Amino acid sequence: MRILVLNPNTTAAMTAGIRDLAEAVASPGTSIVATEPLWGPESIEGHFEGYLSAAAVLDRLTTFDEPFDALVMAGFGEPGREGAQELLDVPVLDIAESAAQMAMMLGHSYGVVTTLDRAVPQIRDRLLTAGLLARCAGVRGTGLGVLELEADRERTVEVIVATAREAVERDGAEVICLGCGGMAGLRERVSKALGGLPVVDGVAAAVKFAEALVGLGLSTSKARAFAPPRPKTITGWPLSGRRPGIR
Amino acid sequence: MRILVLNPNTTAAMTAGIRDLAEAVASPGTSIVATEPLWGPESIEGHFEGYLSAAAVLDRLTTFDEPFDALVMAGFGEPGREGAQELLDVPVLDIAESAAQMAMMLGHSYGVVTTLDRAVPQIRDRLLTAGLLARCAGVRGTGLGVLELEADRERTVEVIVATAREAVERDGAEVICLGCGGMAGLRERVSKALGGLPVVDGVAAAVKFAEALVGLGLSTSKARAFAPPRPKTITGWPLSGRRPGIR
Amino acid sequence: MRILVLNPNTTAAMTAGIRDLAEAVASPGTSIVATEPLWGPESIEGHFEGYLSAAAVLDRLTTFDEPFDALVMAGFGEPGREGAQELLDVPVLDIAESAAQMAMMLGHSYGVVTTLDRAVPQIRDRLLTAGLLARCAGVRGTGLGVLELEADRERTVEVIVATAREAVERDGAEVICLGCGGMAGLRERVSKALGGLPVVDGVAAAVKFAEALVGLGLSTSKARAFAPPRPKTITGWPLSGRRPGIR
Amino acid sequence: MRILVLNPNTTAAMTAGIRDLAEAVASPGTSIVATEPLWGPESIEGHFEGYLSAAAVLDRLTTFDEPFDALVMAGFGEPGREGAQELLDVPVLDIAESAAQMAMMLGHSYGVVTTLDRAVPQIRDRLLTAGLLARCAGVRGTGLGVLELEADRERTVEVIVATAREAVERDGAEVICLGCGGMAGLRERVSKALGGLPVVDGVAAAVKFAEALVGLGLSTSKARAFAPPRPKTITGWPLSGRRPGIR
Amino acid sequence: MRILVLNPNTTAAMTAGIRDLAEAVASPGTSIVATEPLWGPESIEGHFEGYLSAAAVLDRLTTFDEPFDALVMAGFGEPGREGAQELLDVPVLDIAESAAQMAMMLGHSYGVVTTLDRAVPQIRDRLLTAGLLARCAGVRGTGLGVLELEADRERTVEVIVATAREAVERDGAEVICLGCGGMAGLRERVSKALGGLPVVDGVAAAVKFAEALVGLGLSTSKARAFAPPRPKTITGWPLSGRRPGIR
Amino acid sequence: MRILVLNPNTTAAMTAGIRDLAEAVASPGTSIVATEPLWGPESIEGHFEGYLSAAAVLDRLTTFDEPFDALVMAGFGEPGREGAQELLDVPVLDIAESAAQMAMMLGHSYGVVTTLDRAVPQIRDRLLTAGLLARCAGVRGTGLGVLELEADRERTVEVIVATAREAVERDGAEVICLGCGGMAGLRERVSKALGGLPVVDGVAAAVKFAEALVGLGLSTSKARAFAPPRPKTITGWPLSGRRPGIR
Repeated sequence: MRILVLNPNTTAAMTAGIRDLAEAVASPGTSIVATEPLWGPESIEGHFEGYLSAAAVLDRLTTFDEPFDALVMAGFGEPGREGAQELLDVPVLDIAESAAQMAMMLGHSYGVVTTLDRAVPQIRDRLLTAGLLARCAGVRGTGLGVLELEADRERTVEVIVATAREAVERDGAEVICLGCGGMAGLRERVSKALGGLPVVDGVAAAVKFAEALVGLGLSTSKARAFAPPRPKTITGWPLSGRRPGIR
Repeated sequence: MRILVLNPNTTAAMTAGIRDLAEAVASPGTSIVATEPLWGPESIEGHFEGYLSAAAVLDRLTTFDEPFDALVMAGFGEPGREGAQELLDVPVLDIAESAAQMAMMLGHSYGVVTTLDRAVPQIRDRLLTAGLLARCAGVRGTGLGVLELEADRERTVEVIVATAREAVERDGAEVICLGCGGMAGLRERVSKALGGLPVVDGVAAAVKFAEALVGLGLSTSKARAFAPPRPKTITGWPLSGRRPGIR
Repeated sequence: MRILVLNPNTTAAMTAGIRDLAEAVASPGTSIVATEPLWGPESIEGHFEGYLSAAAVLDRLTTFDEPFDALVMAGFGEPGREGAQELLDVPVLDIAESAAQMAMMLGHSYGVVTTLDRAVPQIRDRLLTAGLLARCAGVRGTGLGVLELEADRERTVEVIVATAREAVERDGAEVICLGCGGMAGLRERVSKALGGLPVVDGVAAAVKFAEALVGLGLSTSKARAFAPPRPKTITGWPLSGRRPGIR
Repeated sequence: MRILVLNPNTTAAMTAGIRDLAEAVASPGTSIVATEPLWGPESIEGHFEGYLSAAAVLDRLTTFDEPFDALVMAGFGEPGREGAQELLDVPVLDIAESAAQMAMMLGHSYGVVTTLDRAVPQIRDRLLTAGLLARCAGVRGTGLGVLELEADRERTVEVIVATAREAVERDGAEVICLGCGGMAGLRERVSKALGGLPVVDGVAAAVKFAEALVGLGLSTSKARAFAPPRPKTITGWPLSGRRPGIR
Repeated sequence: MRILVLNPNTTAAMTAGIRDLAEAVASPGTSIVATEPLWGPESIEGHFEGYLSAAAVLDRLTTFDEPFDALVMAGFGEPGREGAQELLDVPVLDIAESAAQMAMMLGHSYGVVTTLDRAVPQIRDRLLTAGLLARCAGVRGTGLGVLELEADRERTVEVIVATAREAVERDGAEVICLGCGGMAGLRERVSKALGGLPVVDGVAAAVKFAEALVGLGLSTSKARAFAPPRPKTITGWPLSGRRPGIR
Repeated sequence: MRILVLNPNTTAAMTAGIRDLAEAVASPGTSIVATEPLWGPESIEGHFEGYLSAAAVLDRLTTFDEPFDALVMAGFGEPGREGAQELLDVPVLDIAESAAQMAMMLGHSYGVVTTLDRAVPQIRDRLLTAGLLARCAGVRGTGLGVLELEADRERTVEVIVATAREAVERDGAEVICLGCGGMAGLRERVSKALGGLPVVDGVAAAVKFAEALVGLGLSTSKARAFAPPRPKTITGWPLSGRRPGIR
């Protein structure tokens, strides 16, 4: 099977990191295609950029020529997932939701360690909307911006570990979710520094869940909330391409 | 003061109806400017269109030359409000949230009567995220599409009234919110048919709340969730124009 | 239009302060009438006094001769609002609920800064009952009694600001609600000391919301919870006057 | 021990019915004193009357000369309990809360059958505030007014049973709470008609819980929410008497 | 009446302590029978032991020859209560739930002080399932194991008091529940050290509630969740004995 | 990898059906071992049997000699999962929780179709405790007992489909979870009869999730709630075998 992993921002280096992780965890027989939107913000650290990115991601999907069996949306808590669910016939996994769901399989409660403090309410809202907040012990920011995560990998791990310790000690988290696609690849190091505490990477979780759903032949229900878009005129939309049915 | 009312879809006739209503309820001294995005779907009946529209609305805001003192976003439950709150220094009101808030001032619980059944989960999610779901008795669809609302105004009122009756009798709603910007102007007729039950129009509510906030000199907190977007490269973004700071 | 602002306690100096604020924020064409009950506690700092005051407020309403178009109940979290909604045909606004609602228009979450710590559970319960607790980051007491607020205005501001800082830093509040009618008039100073963070005064919010509702011709739903009192014998009730229908 | 049972309305016949029930369920060694306020509404069927009654009940307590070991407040969902908890040193039991608590000991979920439909939101709010709503399957009105309950006892039982059946069949209630002090004495008959389904009478439950608390020497915590009223001037209050400390 | 108090672990010394407390609080006319399972863990400090114990407790009940009128299950937050409710015709009280319910009669919110930190999530889950979590300010561990509670009674009280102080000061608890059957008998000392703050012992609470239910002739609803076990083959079950109907 | 699938009851025919399904969905390289307890009820239709079974399942685990990489517990909503998480070092999946989690990946809300109506509250409680109830549209019983499911497979499908239709039409479910291990193998037929609506089988979901967790090298957090059992004396326990450390 082929899984499309879509980095919601336009930083190709981040796409590469996410692809590496996805490939590392994919089962034999699963191939990973990773890409990013054709336009949009270099990183997403707020709602304005998130909404631009949501459209850019949907735009990318309407023009993506290769077939794929599942979509992994690699923005942690970014908007847009429901739109892709309407648009596509294949399963769609959001990495924030996948991380939370996998964490709930591993412990009584989980904490999220993310980038900037300003992302905290947005992530909480996404988990609330997804019905996954009840077992969330807390969401904590590290103060590192998305692109800063790459700058000094050693320092990044240190800060994540320190923040994760607070999640464990003050919030009672039993599992840590890495709350940014840009943290891909740090899971083992963070877990080791935390004495083996389970650490979940959303991209990894989503890839495995995508394999699970495809393996069972299941995809998004079109019964109500995620029914296909109705045919209608989308005037002047600067989509890079056109999906059938959009005039 | 000047209030910008932004119809999230590109159907100018709907913008006109919304403008008429907004002007009818505006206080002396308030002027209404109504517009729609420069591109995007003619109507919004799902998440895909909602996310496209969110970007189109933000795009419109970055290029809107005239000054304004508050923004009313006239999509009922559509995404994008948080992005505008980050982008702008003036207050931002969403009509779904404004309708719910006004309804909560008028009765113990409220019901929403909207267009298609598929919109119901989306509206509930928006109210949940806004912290306004606790007093919602239910959201019910009429089965009428957004653009159908205009077709036969008599029939539209009948269907809304019938659905509202179910909200009152089965769900215990004490106030009805008209759940679509395209229902602007029907408030009195629906209320009369329901024996004087309070009926709230989100555009009207949002205009009055905008006046209230501007009158008190209050605007969006920039302390955390809605801090201004950070300066960053937005490559290839097909924005109709550019706001300062976007390269 | 004429808005009646009812200070729930019998301290006329506090009524004057509340009236000054209400007049300062009222739109042209809105006149403010402020009064207090004819009997009852000089300040309200608990449930016992709150319940006495609720009856005194309802008593005052049954004997108030002048016409008015909306009622603002100026006790922060005090009981009685639902009774006034049954009794009156005009809209009724509670300042705790109005403050919370306005705060929700301004930020992702809000904090309340009130008087004594003992008031905290009572205010939380009022917000819970009103369906407005979901976005409340916390309620914090300053330790100042209601009448102490007037004693040393400089000191009062300092203590409110210090408590508000805790709400922002520890609870994540993005907007502060001043949690007592006796804090009327301090909004600008507190906001300035907090670096411009939005600060909401419940009296101001309620006056503007009352204008909004009256402007739209809306009032309390009588469909169920707030139907008019049924005619019945109220024996020996020491009401200062009698409303028609009470024998 | 002596338990004071306070009927919140001024209908002495209802007080008598409540006293009879309380005496019938009291343990040997427990004596019941039942009374009603010195003034106020003959029955309570809404918030306006409820708030008047709350003050009348507190007034009655300040002048009640005889000692008592616990207070049972016999209004189902009426306001005022917290005020009595501040005022008194002995335990205070509300019959709505006691009924719900006892019902939760008997089944997975409970339903409440009350008088008029307008009381439903008020009772739900009381249970919500008390933290007892999670296991409530629903609250249903019979359409019978408080004083109508007495008119035709046969008919009253029939209507209660029919409403209870709906609670069981549609809401999944496993236990029924009789939702009005005026239903005192009907428990066995309703239960029998429901095939032995447990039926809880709030007065009976509260009397037994009062015995339990007194038996253990426990009373209301004065640590925060229910600390004693602070000494202060209560001007012009038409209390029938004066408690020490009220000038 | 005769109340069976079942210590869920096999430590007879703990059974004796629980019996002493139960007898001390029982009303005249109530006799206490205390016992423990015939096999199982000496103490319960986790889910594995809790589930073994649940079966051992049910096993004990199937073979208990003497009649009894109510069952008190003396494990704080241990599983099994619902099974006993199905099996028995008499009321069943769990001490964690009874403690919480009694605490809710005494204050606005309550805290639980228990043994090891690992028990905290389990107790919270039990309260959540029972619908009693809304008024829980927090659950805190003392770090003392169940059997350590007996070792140095002076030290045990000190540690409980220190933990309870945190519950009051940091969590806002107004009432303290002693969160382990092994704390039986410490209530007065802890309360005194906390300045008279109400302290609830679950065994004491459950005994009094059992008396209340039996006094009113009420028992578990068999309508749905707790209907009697259906007749079926239980192969090879190493029950110490057999109840009628188990082949 | 090897996944142990544990049917909680002693009916070997049901184990066989579950094994067949598990094997059918397992990835290449995954082997399934299915077993049932050595003693206990032939089917589980209530809490009494559920608790007996929980101990029997834990007993089975302590004596299971073969190595395995993950455990799937094939009782829908049965107690015991947390005990296995403490006992084992490998991941543990409950089929009710896995079904709900997979359903949440596929639609906005899901419904559960189970056996007897009496199981409904138990399943809801399990989902509540697991933090998975927010997106549950409802749980509905078919009226078929666990062992009846096998009797007439045609009839079983019909009844499940009819009940699922109610879940879709009345509750708004967009995905259906088959709420009993005994429904293994019916997924495709039910889905087809529902027009292709996604139908989730908990055993299938849990097997795929087990593969996902093992694939990522993740297992249960031992940080708090699921720390290993403490060493202690388990006297007289009729365990079929003994795990190391149990004397």
